[in-house]
Amino acid sequence: MKLGRLNHVAIAVPDLEKATAIYRDTLGGSVTEPQALPEHGVTVVFVDLGNTKVELLEPLGEGSPIGAFLEKNPSGGMHHVCYEVDDIIVARDRLKAGGARVLGDGEPKTGAHGKPVLFLHPKDFCGTLVELEQA
Amino acid sequence: MKLGRLNHVAIAVPDLEKATAIYRDTLGGSVTEPQALPEHGVTVVFVDLGNTKVELLEPLGEGSPIGAFLEKNPSGGMHHVCYEVDDIIVARDRLKAGGARVLGDGEPKTGAHGKPVLFLHPKDFCGTLVELEQA
Repeated sequence: MKLGRLNHVAIAVPDLEKATAIYRDTLGGSVTEPQALPEHGVTVVFVDLGNTKVELLEPLGEGSPIGAFLEKNPSGGMHHVCYEVDDIIVARDRLKAGGARVLGDGEPKTGAHGKPVLFLHPKDFCGTLVELEQA
Repeated sequence: MKLGRLNHVAIAVPDLEKATAIYRDTLGGSVTEPQALPEHGVTVVFVDLGNTKVELLEPLGEGSPIGAFLEKNPSGGMHHVCYEVDDIIVARDRLKAGGARVLGDGEPKTGAHGKPVLFLHPKDFCGTLVELEQA
C-alpha cells in the first residue's frame, strides 16, 4: 500500500456555529454551509485550505461517535486525520496482515464524501485515529 | 487576514524510530531522515503526503515543549496544526485585536522550516493548538 494525500484533518467542536465563525471571521478561512449527516451522527462544515481541508464536526442526535471525545475535551480538539489510498480493500488487507486493527466490522462504510472509508485503531498509529478514504 | 494552506499536522510520539517505521513500512509513506532541533526541544521526521506533510515529533533534551503532552498521551497523539499566512505580523496583530491569545511573548520565532512562526492558544481555536507560519 502507498499512503496518499491528506484528505482532511477533523476537529470535533461543541458548537459548530461558533467554530465556523472562528475559522471564517477570525482566521479568514473559506467555509461551507453546515451539512447534517444523521447516518454518521455529526453535522459537518468544511474549511477549504487550498491543498486540503479541515472538517469541523459537531455531534448530531443520540450516541454520536464524537460524544465521548467531547466529554473528555469540552473545548473540542483534533479528532482524526484522513489519508487517501488508491484501493481501500488492498490497504485494509495489507494492514490487517501486518497486525493493525481496523475498527468496527472491518468493512468500508460510505463516508462524508460518498466514498468508502475505514477507521484504524489509534493505539496502532501513534495515538492518532486514522481514517482511510478511497481516492 | 486570509487563512492559507495546511503546512503540516504535527503528531507527538514517544518513539520516533517506531513511529517512522509505522508511517514508512505499515502505511507506505515517504519519510525524511530524523532531524534534531535542539533549540526547539524536538527531533523531527516529515512524512510527505503529496499535498501536505505530517510532522512526527519526539522530545529532545530536558524540558521539551511536547513533554507534558506525552505524559498525558503516552502513546502519542495529534499535537498541533500549522497553517500558512502571507504576513505573520499582520495576522498576529489582527488576531490580537480580535481578542485571540498568542503564546509566549507574541514575537515570531524561527520554525523547523527556517520561517517565522507563532503559536495560538488552543482555548481560542476549538481546543486545537494552532501554529501560524509565514508562507
